[in-house]
Amino acid sequence: MEQKECIFCKIVQGQIPCFKIYEDEKVLAFADINPITKGHILIIPKVHAESIWEIPEEYLTAISHAAKKIAQAVKKVLDPVGIAFLQLNGRGVGQVVMHYHMHLIPRGSDEPELPVSQWELKPGDKDEIKRIADKIASCL
Amino acid sequence: MEQKECIFCKIVQGQIPCFKIYEDEKVLAFADINPITKGHILIIPKVHAESIWEIPEEYLTAISHAAKKIAQAVKKVLDPVGIAFLQLNGRGVGQVVMHYHMHLIPRGSDEPELPVSQWELKPGDKDEIKRIADKIASCL
Repeated sequence: MEQKECIFCKIVQGQIPCFKIYEDEKVLAFADINPITKGHILIIPKVHAESIWEIPEEYLTAISHAAKKIAQAVKKVLDPVGIAFLQLNGRGVGQVVMHYHMHLIPRGSDEPELPVSQWELKPGDKDEIKRIADKIASCL
Repeated sequence: MEQKECIFCKIVQGQIPCFKIYEDEKVLAFADINPITKGHILIIPKVHAESIWEIPEEYLTAISHAAKKIAQAVKKVLDPVGIAFLQLNGRGVGQVVMHYHMHLIPRGSDEPELPVSQWELKPGDKDEIKRIADKIASCL
């Protein structure tokens, strides 16, 4: 189940300590020690899966339900102005630890805007959007 | 089920067109017309729910499974260097349409780094991290 050199597998196995927030049969959640904001949390599957392409569906289910529960607790405790969830797949988009993890990033009213939600909205080329959408749809 | 003035409810109802990518009983996915990258997709529940705090668990399950299916199709079609999932809850973190939506943002090898995955990693104050983690954990 676990991968020997994976830091998140070691956390799951208790070989590396963490600031635990939530645990169930399939999921572990703990504080990110390089937090973007106060209350930045990582939610991971207890099985080793590198990314969205490898993680079994039942773990996705468990993570999505845990995310909701934790978001409710974060709301009670920190009363944030919002929460961003971010989940990166592949080194090309900045995934560093190659064990699936979902970031839960609350923003407090005293904290600056989140870097993860900053981008310029500009309309794309409709023909190209349609062409790509049709291609992807045809694989589903 | 739907909310009269919600643009995403109107898309679900077919009152506003979209570039549809995937649909099942609970979920609709379509191309973002203000794409950050080629293949930027939105995945939404067919029921109106503003955010993580309101969305029923069975819709979270359906969205997480749809996300995996679509990620597989996107990999086949676009062969991206990675995919970021981003899901914003609350105007304070930049949520614009107040109907739960998950962004699927692939990055092509010819595209610049994603703005959503850019932040500085710096260690936080361990005592504060532990204090906040314990408080949140005690609500779970």
